[in-house]
Amino acid sequence: MFVDMPLEQLRNYRPELREPAGFDAFWERTLAETRLHDLAPVFTEVETDLALVRCFDVRYAGFGGHEIRGWLLVPAAAEGPLPCVVQYIGYNGGRGMPHDWLTWPVAGWAVLVMDSRGQGGGWRAGETADPVGGTWGQVHGKLTQGVLDPDDYYYRRLYADGVRAVEAARAHPLVDPSRVVVSGSSQGGALAMAVSALVPDLLFAFIDVPFMSHIRRAAEITDEEPYAEIGRFLKNHRHRLDQVFATLDHFDGMNFAARNTTPALFSVGLRDGVTPASTVFAAYNHHAGPKDIRVWHFNAHEGGESAQVAEHLKAARDLLAGL
Amino acid sequence: MFVDMPLEQLRNYRPELREPAGFDAFWERTLAETRLHDLAPVFTEVETDLALVRCFDVRYAGFGGHEIRGWLLVPAAAEGPLPCVVQYIGYNGGRGMPHDWLTWPVAGWAVLVMDSRGQGGGWRAGETADPVGGTWGQVHGKLTQGVLDPDDYYYRRLYADGVRAVEAARAHPLVDPSRVVVSGSSQGGALAMAVSALVPDLLFAFIDVPFMSHIRRAAEITDEEPYAEIGRFLKNHRHRLDQVFATLDHFDGMNFAARNTTPALFSVGLRDGVTPASTVFAAYNHHAGPKDIRVWHFNAHEGGESAQVAEHLKAARDLLAGL
Amino acid sequence: MFVDMPLEQLRNYRPELREPAGFDAFWERTLAETRLHDLAPVFTEVETDLALVRCFDVRYAGFGGHEIRGWLLVPAAAEGPLPCVVQYIGYNGGRGMPHDWLTWPVAGWAVLVMDSRGQGGGWRAGETADPVGGTWGQVHGKLTQGVLDPDDYYYRRLYADGVRAVEAARAHPLVDPSRVVVSGSSQGGALAMAVSALVPDLLFAFIDVPFMSHIRRAAEITDEEPYAEIGRFLKNHRHRLDQVFATLDHFDGMNFAARNTTPALFSVGLRDGVTPASTVFAAYNHHAGPKDIRVWHFNAHEGGESAQVAEHLKAARDLLAGL
Amino acid sequence: MFVDMPLEQLRNYRPELREPAGFDAFWERTLAETRLHDLAPVFTEVETDLALVRCFDVRYAGFGGHEIRGWLLVPAAAEGPLPCVVQYIGYNGGRGMPHDWLTWPVAGWAVLVMDSRGQGGGWRAGETADPVGGTWGQVHGKLTQGVLDPDDYYYRRLYADGVRAVEAARAHPLVDPSRVVVSGSSQGGALAMAVSALVPDLLFAFIDVPFMSHIRRAAEITDEEPYAEIGRFLKNHRHRLDQVFATLDHFDGMNFAARNTTPALFSVGLRDGVTPASTVFAAYNHHAGPKDIRVWHFNAHEGGESAQVAEHLKAARDLLAGL
Amino acid sequence: MFVDMPLEQLRNYRPELREPAGFDAFWERTLAETRLHDLAPVFTEVETDLALVRCFDVRYAGFGGHEIRGWLLVPAAAEGPLPCVVQYIGYNGGRGMPHDWLTWPVAGWAVLVMDSRGQGGGWRAGETADPVGGTWGQVHGKLTQGVLDPDDYYYRRLYADGVRAVEAARAHPLVDPSRVVVSGSSQGGALAMAVSALVPDLLFAFIDVPFMSHIRRAAEITDEEPYAEIGRFLKNHRHRLDQVFATLDHFDGMNFAARNTTPALFSVGLRDGVTPASTVFAAYNHHAGPKDIRVWHFNAHEGGESAQVAEHLKAARDLLAGL
Amino acid sequence: MFVDMPLEQLRNYRPELREPAGFDAFWERTLAETRLHDLAPVFTEVETDLALVRCFDVRYAGFGGHEIRGWLLVPAAAEGPLPCVVQYIGYNGGRGMPHDWLTWPVAGWAVLVMDSRGQGGGWRAGETADPVGGTWGQVHGKLTQGVLDPDDYYYRRLYADGVRAVEAARAHPLVDPSRVVVSGSSQGGALAMAVSALVPDLLFAFIDVPFMSHIRRAAEITDEEPYAEIGRFLKNHRHRLDQVFATLDHFDGMNFAARNTTPALFSVGLRDGVTPASTVFAAYNHHAGPKDIRVWHFNAHEGGESAQVAEHLKAARDLLAGL
Repeated sequence: MFVDMPLEQLRNYRPELREPAGFDAFWERTLAETRLHDLAPVFTEVETDLALVRCFDVRYAGFGGHEIRGWLLVPAAAEGPLPCVVQYIGYNGGRGMPHDWLTWPVAGWAVLVMDSRGQGGGWRAGETADPVGGTWGQVHGKLTQGVLDPDDYYYRRLYADGVRAVEAARAHPLVDPSRVVVSGSSQGGALAMAVSALVPDLLFAFIDVPFMSHIRRAAEITDEEPYAEIGRFLKNHRHRLDQVFATLDHFDGMNFAARNTTPALFSVGLRDGVTPASTVFAAYNHHAGPKDIRVWHFNAHEGGESAQVAEHLKAARDLLAGL
Repeated sequence: MFVDMPLEQLRNYRPELREPAGFDAFWERTLAETRLHDLAPVFTEVETDLALVRCFDVRYAGFGGHEIRGWLLVPAAAEGPLPCVVQYIGYNGGRGMPHDWLTWPVAGWAVLVMDSRGQGGGWRAGETADPVGGTWGQVHGKLTQGVLDPDDYYYRRLYADGVRAVEAARAHPLVDPSRVVVSGSSQGGALAMAVSALVPDLLFAFIDVPFMSHIRRAAEITDEEPYAEIGRFLKNHRHRLDQVFATLDHFDGMNFAARNTTPALFSVGLRDGVTPASTVFAAYNHHAGPKDIRVWHFNAHEGGESAQVAEHLKAARDLLAGL
Repeated sequence: MFVDMPLEQLRNYRPELREPAGFDAFWERTLAETRLHDLAPVFTEVETDLALVRCFDVRYAGFGGHEIRGWLLVPAAAEGPLPCVVQYIGYNGGRGMPHDWLTWPVAGWAVLVMDSRGQGGGWRAGETADPVGGTWGQVHGKLTQGVLDPDDYYYRRLYADGVRAVEAARAHPLVDPSRVVVSGSSQGGALAMAVSALVPDLLFAFIDVPFMSHIRRAAEITDEEPYAEIGRFLKNHRHRLDQVFATLDHFDGMNFAARNTTPALFSVGLRDGVTPASTVFAAYNHHAGPKDIRVWHFNAHEGGESAQVAEHLKAARDLLAGL
Repeated sequence: MFVDMPLEQLRNYRPELREPAGFDAFWERTLAETRLHDLAPVFTEVETDLALVRCFDVRYAGFGGHEIRGWLLVPAAAEGPLPCVVQYIGYNGGRGMPHDWLTWPVAGWAVLVMDSRGQGGGWRAGETADPVGGTWGQVHGKLTQGVLDPDDYYYRRLYADGVRAVEAARAHPLVDPSRVVVSGSSQGGALAMAVSALVPDLLFAFIDVPFMSHIRRAAEITDEEPYAEIGRFLKNHRHRLDQVFATLDHFDGMNFAARNTTPALFSVGLRDGVTPASTVFAAYNHHAGPKDIRVWHFNAHEGGESAQVAEHLKAARDLLAGL
Repeated sequence: MFVDMPLEQLRNYRPELREPAGFDAFWERTLAETRLHDLAPVFTEVETDLALVRCFDVRYAGFGGHEIRGWLLVPAAAEGPLPCVVQYIGYNGGRGMPHDWLTWPVAGWAVLVMDSRGQGGGWRAGETADPVGGTWGQVHGKLTQGVLDPDDYYYRRLYADGVRAVEAARAHPLVDPSRVVVSGSSQGGALAMAVSALVPDLLFAFIDVPFMSHIRRAAEITDEEPYAEIGRFLKNHRHRLDQVFATLDHFDGMNFAARNTTPALFSVGLRDGVTPASTVFAAYNHHAGPKDIRVWHFNAHEGGESAQVAEHLKAARDLLAGL
Repeated sequence: MFVDMPLEQLRNYRPELREPAGFDAFWERTLAETRLHDLAPVFTEVETDLALVRCFDVRYAGFGGHEIRGWLLVPAAAEGPLPCVVQYIGYNGGRGMPHDWLTWPVAGWAVLVMDSRGQGGGWRAGETADPVGGTWGQVHGKLTQGVLDPDDYYYRRLYADGVRAVEAARAHPLVDPSRVVVSGSSQGGALAMAVSALVPDLLFAFIDVPFMSHIRRAAEITDEEPYAEIGRFLKNHRHRLDQVFATLDHFDGMNFAARNTTPALFSVGLRDGVTPASTVFAAYNHHAGPKDIRVWHFNAHEGGESAQVAEHLKAARDLLAGL
């Protein structure tokens, strides 16, 4: 059943921003610190049984100079420079195997998949460690790791890694740096939303059923994972509400959206209990760039699946045609 | 947790066959009747955004001469003849969209995907009708449609469609008829198992977590869908046990396995509640051809997922190397 | 808990009708086509251990001339003509056994129970086939069978069978054609609602917790079966919303109610998640004939059970007294 | 799925009895005490809309002289003396309304339905109080009320009421005292089992999916209600195991079965989690009289439902024919 | 997720009272009848391994003169008179063991724990019987025991026992009768709320997540136990709504709150499905004495747990400091 | 229901040990490395409202020299040296507040509660960080953190912290170093089991429903948390089985038990799905010191609760008496 507001209301849902003082400074500082480390991208071609594509193992220095892994796939015959999609991954998943990422190269694009540090245990295996230890009292899961201070919070590192993934893609000779698109679903959508706000010259963003948007509301209206991690933490650490939400405001997709001018295609499922529709529209309605949204009426967090991929392919074709 | 026998016991589990009198005659008759209709394969190339592959909408006459749909994908540059995988689909799913089927063409193979008649409502959309009406008293779902008589049973039509899918693949000029492999997971595995027994000259079969094997046992030991449909039917039609199982014996993967000499790679999940491990090993241990099996210890019905795809690609490479 | 609007609001809930163009013509055409086939009712007395009643196996030609089965029970000593209840059955159920239908004959009435074609697998065994095959992409269950076109839709056949059941009852010499009542709960209530709109000269209708009313709203506000079948279909066939609801509007109880002048007694459970109270009141408030409704405050889809039977018996007594 | 032993094993399952010392003396004393109170049966005819039957409200003195209620229904034309079924009710249910009990009178029998004291709150309303207060520490529900001492235990009163129900039936002029049958399902089956052991001259017993048999095993192997009440009590009252089971042994159907020579028809569902099949067979295999059992393979606690009613009617016909 | 109104709305939620005529007279009569029996408190010191405290087994005459049990714990070195907390227990629990009640004596207070008659089966063992038998038709559980008449209702006895517990505490030489506080959570909170309204000279009340407040609303908006017992009763006894709620109004915490001038500290969990926040605020906002409330945002019925104990200890310190 | 072997079988269940080569050397090295850091215990008295006890905030250097926190409580009047219980905490919990730990000081003992690093988010708040970062691919939760290498595994640090907790207790002037007991339930039991094997001169160990014992079996037979974390990891990291279990063998309670000569009292719940009874008996039956076990028949992972506390108090009294 529909678990949030009716569609007409969603289309106009534009909750007041809770932007913390120093939001921009926080992110400038974060990226500046990150860039103190040399990006040091390494692309090592790997053998596969996939005759039509070439595949590279990717390593580069993310936040703190920590090694982040990924894959880069390109059409086997490509001589470049190619337009490139930087792909972010949903919560708990990892970069998996090269044959998990064939759509974009078959469509003629390069794709760089970024592994999520410390994740990849839940459904698609990851291989990137997060060498930063935990602070006290956290609930299992990433959503409360370091949540008492924006500087310690897990997503500070992850978003910074995401910005660096664009830089890594641009460092490869087969990639055209002027035609980079970010894309992701759920946590991947949160990354695409943040990175396209933090990196000024991206071509486009695909933001599907994004996580980490209007987080206060999400923590109150849904019991589904992973937003439920916040409630579990606060159930136990009863006197930390203001502190926790003050941290989370630094990572809220609405705040990124309001300063994001990258053209973007969103999608939303009206029955989504994981990233409820109102939290998606909260970001969409604040998005400051050209935008459109696909509404899937009877879908939950799976959103459009193959049908949304078709929307991506069509939008990508139009993008290239328009250049 | 593990929901069936321990692995050592599974490796030796070889239950007595319950082969109905006239099993072979039933299938000979079924295929003969099917072949009274002209196969009439039609391949219509469709436009996609997938530069590296060509895609064809497929239609051919299945059981009863009814129109069955599918996709055929080949590498864009292929001049053929190519080795070809005929791909069958799991319960409730359909052929979906062309970009759902990129792995095999990217590996240099043709792939023909067969839509399952009357299915495609559950997870990946299908478009093939089943024009045969239902008999009385069925439970919702295909597993009890016509189950009171082998001639009326839904899977008679589906398996015959599966045999015809191989014939359709072989009818395409880019496909090498001597190098056809069948593949499928769950219901797709049941089809691969039956078709590779009914079609004598296939190159290989990929049979993953197959459904429709050792059906009597499955109906007793699991409550998960879709085997549970049998129990629901018999809960209500209390006096039909013998009749129902007499029908099902005509479609049991164990009976096909015992006469199947096609080389095959199976896979099984030891925590699979949908197609319990003992029902998979029952078929595997009876399989009369060269065989191997991948055992996924902590996996349920998802089996090996990407890791199993890697096994397929490796086996496919060895196959071609060995020819 | 209460799962819908408060009672005061329900009493005034009268949503706008979404009557498709040609609604009446569609049903006139449907019944005209049905009546091209001879009704051909056959009543075969069956032996039972039930000394106080006589029981007949009933067969007649429903939609498409297909054989529909049922039971007719009358008091053993009856010489007729008797008032008669035509009884329709809930989703998944069938006509069962004669001793399932004793209340009305013990009260001195005839009762004709209509089997639901293609159902009877879920809880009370049925024996009537639906010889019409499925169209593509359906979800398991009847609610999406043929839902892309009103002419193909399962409920077109079922409602037409329901009209013919009245004609069959009237064809029996022990039944008084001028005193026929229709009755049913859930899907049976949907049938009673449609038939009493389509057959002009019925004495009364018992419409308990009716299904198939205000279907668009039901598909949105409840996740319970069987309305959930619609959502599952649309989850998968994402581009078919308008087409599906355009079909369903031809079968919506609200549209029948607005043209139904048969006196009727409804019932509703305020905690009903299967046929939510607002969808029942939507039909009730549009009903154009004399009407009353029993409200069961703390009941779900079971509604009034024995207490509602008592209401039926009392209303039946008053009906006969009033004649 | 099947939740207990395979059928072959069940047919021979005959666990050792745990008969407490003084079992027979306990029940002799219980009935003697009960009979100190005058039975005082009162039959008050009630008006109904059920033309073919006559119905009487029944009251009589059960255990402790407490008023027990019931219904007596007979064919309207009956002049008697009729064979009579004394009907007991499942856990949580009550006598309901007269039209709930039409099958036996329609078949030409009298039926006396006994209300269960202190029950009737769960599904079919009851109206008989249990004036005896609770002892300490009980879990909600009847299964632990007074369980620390056989003299205080709820089922002592209920079984004694059941014996008195037979006496009440025999006291009515339309009932033939030599042709009384007891019948019940679940808790009703427990009553039928106990009463037919305690009353020597009954004609027959219908014992369907009986409760209160092999109670120690049931408490260990099932988590379903109501046996789960025992486990909840012992979870909390950790040092009372022996005391509790010593009480329960006085009420265990196996102990009654071993001294029960009344001819009986049992039934069992192989998927029954409420009264697991092994606990039913434990009683059946110990039953000392002529016996038969209907095995419903794919049924849970609902057992045979209408199909079992058909078995009852057939057995009843044979009974009368055999006299 | 939050399961009731937003906090701002809760703070002003003050539903109209439904005070039955004769509310005060009913309770005066109840207490007068109770006091006809001699209180007869007996304190028997028990040996424990708890060196720092002394423990007494408590017995006194509650409603009807029935024996109620409890514990009294005091610091081992106490010479009195001490301030004393009278502690009531949540639904299904009992007085347990002495070492379950150490907090107050360690803080220098006496504590008298009252066992709840007929409870103590669910989680902490109790030992107090309720010798009053049940009336007809009750649902398992205390909430419907005698609910058809205020005089018969279980909570009449329990609340009267609660008043007597204060009298028993005051009868002990180590307790200072002028410094008695009542405390309880859930059902214990209902008791604290009622007793502090019925006993005029208490020092303070701790009322945590109280049960039995705004009962009509609770029965409608939550499906959780134990309020669900009311709905189950009314589901079955469909014609008793007004009668049942007329009884419950005599026991509703809102009615007690409106005449309660004892200073009180409440607590509430905004995610509490057992005693929903609006029902707690309904009592709090009507409370006529000095008051405060702790709001636990992300907690359900567990409320503040240790953090609420800390609030109690702090309030207790302030209380003593203020005297 | 009982979820493991019958009790008679459990009493003799003594599975073969899987002791990795170098087990003792691994732990010697681990402790030696830990002790390179100065223990540096700091006890800071904190103000509470608990007049009868004194409470100290505890900090000391655990594994890696990382700061571990805890509480030390002693009777207010104690002049020492006192016998002391070192208390470990269950999975997800933390040290909470001082009033959570009153039982032992009220009984005249000192108690030192050790916070579990990086936990305390689940139910009782903790405050100790784990500064060691994660390795790749972990599942949320501690059970897979660093599980690919014994040196990296979380429990290496935690067990070493546990050994240091004993050293910290012994460093306090009010504690008698020769009379230290370790105690814990679930993960606390795992710690008590490991520490009492690693520290040679402890007086006694209370080991309740211990976790981390016979881990391979637990991972296979239960789906409950937290053992389920292992299965989730291996579901995803399909090729790491041997590596993961090779690590876990270094932390398996059976291996500690076989070299543990500390007298111990165990407890077990026969319905425990979290730490199944066979895994508890596996450790108990291998335990090399004097031992006894309390068996709770109808209890799950809650085990004996207050009744087990009573067993502890009694055993503690006997311990002191015996000295």
